[in-house]
Amino acid sequence: MILVLGATGYVGAKYAAYLGRREIPFRAVSRAELDYTRLENLIQLIKDTQPEFLVNAAGYTGKPNVDACEIYKRETLEGNAVFPATVRAACEATDTPWGHVSSGCIYSGRRDDGLPFKEEDTPNFSFRTNNSSFYSGTKALGEELLEGAENCYIWRLRIPFNNENNPRNYLTKLMKYSTLLEAENSISQLDEFVEATFECWEKKVPFGTYNVTNPGAVMTSDVVNLIKEETDRRKNEGLDAPFPDEFNFFESLEQFMEIAAKTPRSNCVMDHSKLTSVGIQMTPVEEAIRTALRNWVD
Amino acid sequence: MILVLGATGYVGAKYAAYLGRREIPFRAVSRAELDYTRLENLIQLIKDTQPEFLVNAAGYTGKPNVDACEIYKRETLEGNAVFPATVRAACEATDTPWGHVSSGCIYSGRRDDGLPFKEEDTPNFSFRTNNSSFYSGTKALGEELLEGAENCYIWRLRIPFNNENNPRNYLTKLMKYSTLLEAENSISQLDEFVEATFECWEKKVPFGTYNVTNPGAVMTSDVVNLIKEETDRRKNEGLDAPFPDEFNFFESLEQFMEIAAKTPRSNCVMDHSKLTSVGIQMTPVEEAIRTALRNWVD
Repeated sequence: MILVLGATGYVGAKYAAYLGRREIPFRAVSRAELDYTRLENLIQLIKDTQPEFLVNAAGYTGKPNVDACEIYKRETLEGNAVFPATVRAACEATDTPWGHVSSGCIYSGRRDDGLPFKEEDTPNFSFRTNNSSFYSGTKALGEELLEGAENCYIWRLRIPFNNENNPRNYLTKLMKYSTLLEAENSISQLDEFVEATFECWEKKVPFGTYNVTNPGAVMTSDVVNLIKEETDRRKNEGLDAPFPDEFNFFESLEQFMEIAAKTPRSNCVMDHSKLTSVGIQMTPVEEAIRTALRNWVD
Repeated sequence: MILVLGATGYVGAKYAAYLGRREIPFRAVSRAELDYTRLENLIQLIKDTQPEFLVNAAGYTGKPNVDACEIYKRETLEGNAVFPATVRAACEATDTPWGHVSSGCIYSGRRDDGLPFKEEDTPNFSFRTNNSSFYSGTKALGEELLEGAENCYIWRLRIPFNNENNPRNYLTKLMKYSTLLEAENSISQLDEFVEATFECWEKKVPFGTYNVTNPGAVMTSDVVNLIKEETDRRKNEGLDAPFPDEFNFFESLEQFMEIAAKTPRSNCVMDHSKLTSVGIQMTPVEEAIRTALRNWVD
């Protein structure tokens, strides 16, 4: 039995759907159903359900976006830094292997040597480097509190997307924002993320931290071009194209920060090779975006 | 009615004793009695007790010392960063004025210009500066989460001491440690701290942050000399002197860190003048130490 925490979140709901589709016994719990942030409640839940593996997909991301975390600091700190440590304590007390959905947003740009960030690189977008959003600070602190955790995966998700229109979907965001920021990013196809992370457990790959992004990186304008390409394809086939025709870009990061954002955003390129090295494949990023757009569900 | 959170702690217990002595109606609550870390419980407690003022003396300091906070990171982060924000949320929801016992340990040394740290100086011993103990990091983060809080005092305590032998008492520590670290510090006589902070409320001085240390600063060796002076005085009067005769010092901070400490300590000098400027007096530090030693209770 697999226990999923954060049942109603964007990632947690996907986990539940995935496990259901594969007919793997699971229980997905929301905080509204049971306050698992209390250690004693979580330990009791684990004792009651006896999971062979636990997935922590709960976290605080801010609505409508990460700027909200600058206001709801208590919830952000509790959800992203304290709570992972609570799950760790509960899993260690009950000897339960588990995985934590972390984030690549603890990095900015590329490494100093120009290469993508590897799992062991120290976060450069965190409280410690004093340049990050409050959200990124708490996610990095959350990983710190998992240092030395045994029987634990830390899976770094980055800007989830897939073929389903949703305010949390990166593609939806690009289509809805009036103006876009040009930036280079590694990103994660959400369904592939869920599959790849669960594969970590099924294949019993070594515990530890994994960047779970689709291989490669894209500029915002690359994604926009893929959207335009799909619109053209559909028109050529005489089909309706539900995507916008025009996209506007901020002139600079400075203009973006001045006009649109309250807190710095993480844009970063991550190294996917550790996951590949343990035999888990994800689709190259451009292909994954094309597929999502081709199968778009409004 | 005054509501005190953290009734069984070193500071909270002093608050209860102080208010009791003055026959001011109060209720001092421990977490064991009621889990006030849950926002809904705390709001209910405030609604039930209708305090005119609330004191948060709860926090996580680590036993036997701050090194323990490097192990109990979850408790440290929850107690010192999340919990003050929970108290803030509860006090704002119920329109209750309150005071938070913070710490001067978010600073190290003196300001770059050689002067003591003022209330508005940015902490230089925190997660943000990436040089601190985990404890100090969480205390500084706790203050961040109180930014913009109205009807709130932030009182910075520094190395409490008084005339009562206690493992938390700075004087007890100096007498018990086999080897001492020479360092310059501002420190707080605990009874005076309690009195001065409560005076903030009684005198309705402006809300905000106050360094609540005895005026001045002392080197460790100054305090040792005061202990020796008191021993001599007692011997001259034919009295027993309960203090050690010999004190050893580490050769350097490097030696101290190598041999005795797992995490960096805050040693710092704080500016007391804001508290004085609102008409609240504390005894000059050397005099306060002399008085504590003269009235020592084992």
